[in-house]
Amino acid sequence: MEVQNVLHMTPGEDRNSYVVNSEYQKMVIIKAKSFLEEAITDLYCKTFPKSLSIADLGCSSGPNTLLVISEIIETISSLCRKLGHQSPELQVFLNDLPGNDFNTIFKSIPCFLEKHRTDKGNEFGPCFIAGMPGSFYERLFLAETLDFVHSSYSLHYLSQVPHGIESNKGNIHIAVTSPPCVPIAYLTQFQSDFAFFLSLRSEELVYGGRMVLTILGRRNTDPSIKENCDSWELLALSLRDMVSQGLVDEAKLDSFNLPMYSPCVEEVKAIIQEQGSFHLNVMETFDLDSGTNDDYEKEDVEFDEIIKTLSQLS
Amino acid sequence: MEVQNVLHMTPGEDRNSYVVNSEYQKMVIIKAKSFLEEAITDLYCKTFPKSLSIADLGCSSGPNTLLVISEIIETISSLCRKLGHQSPELQVFLNDLPGNDFNTIFKSIPCFLEKHRTDKGNEFGPCFIAGMPGSFYERLFLAETLDFVHSSYSLHYLSQVPHGIESNKGNIHIAVTSPPCVPIAYLTQFQSDFAFFLSLRSEELVYGGRMVLTILGRRNTDPSIKENCDSWELLALSLRDMVSQGLVDEAKLDSFNLPMYSPCVEEVKAIIQEQGSFHLNVMETFDLDSGTNDDYEKEDVEFDEIIKTLSQLS
Repeated sequence: MEVQNVLHMTPGEDRNSYVVNSEYQKMVIIKAKSFLEEAITDLYCKTFPKSLSIADLGCSSGPNTLLVISEIIETISSLCRKLGHQSPELQVFLNDLPGNDFNTIFKSIPCFLEKHRTDKGNEFGPCFIAGMPGSFYERLFLAETLDFVHSSYSLHYLSQVPHGIESNKGNIHIAVTSPPCVPIAYLTQFQSDFAFFLSLRSEELVYGGRMVLTILGRRNTDPSIKENCDSWELLALSLRDMVSQGLVDEAKLDSFNLPMYSPCVEEVKAIIQEQGSFHLNVMETFDLDSGTNDDYEKEDVEFDEIIKTLSQLS
Repeated sequence: MEVQNVLHMTPGEDRNSYVVNSEYQKMVIIKAKSFLEEAITDLYCKTFPKSLSIADLGCSSGPNTLLVISEIIETISSLCRKLGHQSPELQVFLNDLPGNDFNTIFKSIPCFLEKHRTDKGNEFGPCFIAGMPGSFYERLFLAETLDFVHSSYSLHYLSQVPHGIESNKGNIHIAVTSPPCVPIAYLTQFQSDFAFFLSLRSEELVYGGRMVLTILGRRNTDPSIKENCDSWELLALSLRDMVSQGLVDEAKLDSFNLPMYSPCVEEVKAIIQEQGSFHLNVMETFDLDSGTNDDYEKEDVEFDEIIKTLSQLS
């Protein structure tokens, strides 16, 4: 069972859906806004291009999907107003796995564009928004055609569950009780996936193209310490209860592991340097205290995010 | 009520859906295959490009959606095999109105590409398939980025119901009993829409880019003669029956007119010449006798189609 064929956000609009449970992801985008603005400003002001091709990787389907595009449009419109330029044409590709609900996004695009047209008048240039289904662990675009790549809260998803973690029984991710091979296997998978992601994007970006990536990360270098494992351990605990009550098959729990990994800053930096296609302009971490979901204690919704803006080297 | 916000093929897969009622449209594509092959061959052999950007306008969602793309891939793979070339990268944009079911298309793309990869091996180059929602009576793509535009059985849809046909009471299209202003209003709308379509595409196509358009047309120059009106007249007759039985409001029938027009060869040729952006390479008409639907008499499913291959002039 391949991850890319089954993974998607929970559809619909009920209380368990992604649409009503994406406030946290929205705050991550808002928190990273200044980095996005800076990268877009640098990109535009370097050559004042007549058009820009932009991809948002892992766009999902919900209230955040067009938020990043909106920020990009705002930044460019504001720049063009200040400079007295005509806005460049924008080609936007919204990417997510083929199971993502693109229909709902597409139906909202005419109103989205109309609103920007009304608000900005002549400062709003033509903007063409396409959907590009597929995994970002594959080539998605023609060689040397993208000017800018953005991805928020998506790169912690791995291309597959790491191999060689059959011994991680009763756990669903790296846990305090996991054998030592488990965190190593997860890190190895992340290193391989992220390096491959960088090499794919380096083929697709034009020379001088930019990326802004926001990744769910962790504070500590050791992924096995309690603080890093707590959130998934709660879920594993519930699943073990369900096994003991005969509601879930033990073999299924033993063989199940989540295809995600939250790297620390040092791991991300090392992969970028070793892969070699990109120059790292800015790398910052921030803690996010949501404070919007009363069901959780503060410490449960605190994560580190890593913001990176990268420039294409070759 | 704008046409582009409400028009889409009947969704689902039941007996009334487009998915099980698109055999006729499939035969049109197959009948036009040789023109597509010739245009793609000319396009590729002129410069042997490393990549080609292709748009299919009015792609719908059903068994025919990827058929045209499949024919294009076959043609290019076969050419590259003969010439000993590496296949170019293909960027395909599937376009239809935002109400089209893109989700179903997107879910079928991984299997579609895998099949071509397995069948063709090294002769199959990277192929990236995106969805571009929007009306083809608006700009859809960045300026001068498309190499090839295809559209089959879509350009008879007008951008709106023609103005000034309030007198066409009891009819839903041009009918034998329509006042003389009705066919004139329909033709005027088609002339305006098709000329605008050509000017939009001429902005998007690169110099030397090509188009193959297959349009539902009519044999006779007079659109009001019985032969051209019969099919919609049957539907109007049923609606008038429903009015007389009190099932449909008479005012609704009186104000309803279909936003479609089937031009004759002379009308299409005149618009292309007058609009001036394209050189008309080939223009052929064919009759299609489906013979697959036993519910219809042969003469009811005979139409003329107009095939045009056009080259971008400026």
